[in-house]
Amino acid sequence: MAETIFSKIVSGSIPSHKIYEDDHVFAFLDINPLSRGHTLVVPKEAVATLGELSDDAAAALGRVLPRLCRAVARVSGSPDYNVLQNNGAAAHQAVFHVHFHIIPKLPSGAGLGVDWKPGNLSSDDGEALVKELATALRAAP
Amino acid sequence: MAETIFSKIVSGSIPSHKIYEDDHVFAFLDINPLSRGHTLVVPKEAVATLGELSDDAAAALGRVLPRLCRAVARVSGSPDYNVLQNNGAAAHQAVFHVHFHIIPKLPSGAGLGVDWKPGNLSSDDGEALVKELATALRAAP
Repeated sequence: MAETIFSKIVSGSIPSHKIYEDDHVFAFLDINPLSRGHTLVVPKEAVATLGELSDDAAAALGRVLPRLCRAVARVSGSPDYNVLQNNGAAAHQAVFHVHFHIIPKLPSGAGLGVDWKPGNLSSDDGEALVKELATALRAAP
Repeated sequence: MAETIFSKIVSGSIPSHKIYEDDHVFAFLDINPLSRGHTLVVPKEAVATLGELSDDAAAALGRVLPRLCRAVARVSGSPDYNVLQNNGAAAHQAVFHVHFHIIPKLPSGAGLGVDWKPGNLSSDDGEALVKELATALRAAP
């Protein structure tokens, strides 16, 4: 994979406001925060999307998310926050190295804006999707 | 913690369109999808927010996210998707049992709408936040 700004941050060739590091995970402040405390959590494994990440790297990243969320919430002063992970340019991904945003939602309204336009899942389509997803899980476990 | 609709889905007392289950994790279709294939991934451990989740439950959930993302992307027909996890009513959480959304972003535009209003992190505030977060990580590891 091509080097990205995030792999350069992980290697230290680009400086960052680092807040956490272990063998598999690196966390640092977003320099264009949506709210104070906005943090990025990345695996050291350099892949573009979450679907490409190895099980072990994903488990290591998942394991540290709660403690990072607790720290961010404590520092932001708000118990409310969103964790967002975007895959693909159409889904707002801008840097093609997997990253999770932890974004405090502040009483001022600062934070992630979410536009939610839900539909309804019909029973028939639900059953069809369950079959399609079972097939997909078998085909690409 | 009070029982939620999701803990009842996990226990089977409320039916769902289940697509995955292991010792720690349960995944099923959102009945109010933002796009076709919209999936919810929950830990069996019943806590409200990600910050409250145990390390082991978070690792188990993290481990299966990539394979579920691959299956959802294959079924939706789009490589683009958002993974979103909300904490607190102000951050759009509606069911108070931790859950990750996997939301396909379709060429039609269906999917998660994101409103992104970034600021700039000053060097001084970056340094202050790094210290505050280090203190918070030590205080509540």
